[in-house]
Amino acid sequence: MLREEGKMEHQEGFEEVLPGQIEAKSFEIIGEELARRGICLKPEEEPVIKRAIHATADFDYASSLVFAPGGIDMGLKALKRGAAVVTDTNMAKAGINKRKLESLGGQVFCFMADADVAERAREMGCTRAAASMEKAAALFGRGEKDGEIGGDGNAVNRRPVIVAVGNAPTALAALCRMIREGSFLPDLVVGVPVGFVNVVQSKELLLAQDKVPYIVARGGKGGSSVAAAVVNALLYQV
Amino acid sequence: MLREEGKMEHQEGFEEVLPGQIEAKSFEIIGEELARRGICLKPEEEPVIKRAIHATADFDYASSLVFAPGGIDMGLKALKRGAAVVTDTNMAKAGINKRKLESLGGQVFCFMADADVAERAREMGCTRAAASMEKAAALFGRGEKDGEIGGDGNAVNRRPVIVAVGNAPTALAALCRMIREGSFLPDLVVGVPVGFVNVVQSKELLLAQDKVPYIVARGGKGGSSVAAAVVNALLYQV
Repeated sequence: MLREEGKMEHQEGFEEVLPGQIEAKSFEIIGEELARRGICLKPEEEPVIKRAIHATADFDYASSLVFAPGGIDMGLKALKRGAAVVTDTNMAKAGINKRKLESLGGQVFCFMADADVAERAREMGCTRAAASMEKAAALFGRGEKDGEIGGDGNAVNRRPVIVAVGNAPTALAALCRMIREGSFLPDLVVGVPVGFVNVVQSKELLLAQDKVPYIVARGGKGGSSVAAAVVNALLYQV
Repeated sequence: MLREEGKMEHQEGFEEVLPGQIEAKSFEIIGEELARRGICLKPEEEPVIKRAIHATADFDYASSLVFAPGGIDMGLKALKRGAAVVTDTNMAKAGINKRKLESLGGQVFCFMADADVAERAREMGCTRAAASMEKAAALFGRGEKDGEIGGDGNAVNRRPVIVAVGNAPTALAALCRMIREGSFLPDLVVGVPVGFVNVVQSKELLLAQDKVPYIVARGGKGGSSVAAAVVNALLYQV
């Protein structure tokens, strides 16, 4: 049985692709399909969009992903400087390439399962996801009072923060409130919660502000796989 | 700032839904949208299909999910008997409800990051995902030689196994080879790898056999979120 393993891919009807070349071949196929559909992506957005499609096999992301001007650039700068990446889902945390992130001095956090977050959520009558964003703000937050936002990374000496919301619109709504109040201004927000209750609304809130750069999957679609894919697409460009 | 948290959901344009009711409301909306599209689901398949849609906001799963006769029943029986759930993705592992699974005596495993799996993959020139299925077979496998398959759980005293492939078609192809050889016959295979290279082919392999019950997302779509959603939908019915 074991001797046959090496031949596993060579089944009738299967494409013969070496293990190390599967991802490249996938991106090639995605590129061909985008061309076939007459979709032309901006070069700087292409790696993010293709990786989101790669994670979902869903070409809707070619049109639904919206990028704030300079959003990708801010994300790359933050990652280069060892960003804290905070997400509202342990699945996204599991999917983000921690080896690459940590090689840059970064780290990924999800506070969803924390006892203090559960307690705060109960106290406040909000979701744990919303409470987890409060915790992120308390630990990594930097607001308008803390000085100039963005700009050249070298001029700012706090730890940069990327928030990737891959599940709960309540997390994104809480974050948008803090952004509006000026109390928490991440370097980049990846806004890709998924679902049916206030998902579209929470994304439109993020799109409507201009204090913080964003990458948003407009509409109801998104999820942990997309959140991880967007962060990884940025990581692989650093 | 903190005093406003409880009011977070009460934003203009947002539906007011209490944290504990968001999921029920989501399922209600999914049901309405399915009705609007004239889609009528089989009662036993409905919880699985709705949870897959809940995890992705993608109604394609209403038509792409294919269930082997008795597949759901076999999955439920396996979970009741404390199944080992093996997946090819740490994201799916993170997303499966471990509290519920462990309350039934079950446990979730992902061998993708194991050193012996990486070594075996190198040796055999296969993917780590394929090698991880070999490891699952070695640890939990039960083949044709080990006695009658399936049937009443009480008559079988080994640990039941559910394999949930949420990422790599090479994992599913390796599994299908072992099924064909009769060397590894899980109680249920959730076949929802995602992507573009041999994904459709690997799913069709699984659909073409009748030794092992399956739940398959036909086509290229799938992923960790879908794998976790399918397993959780079964768990929540036990």
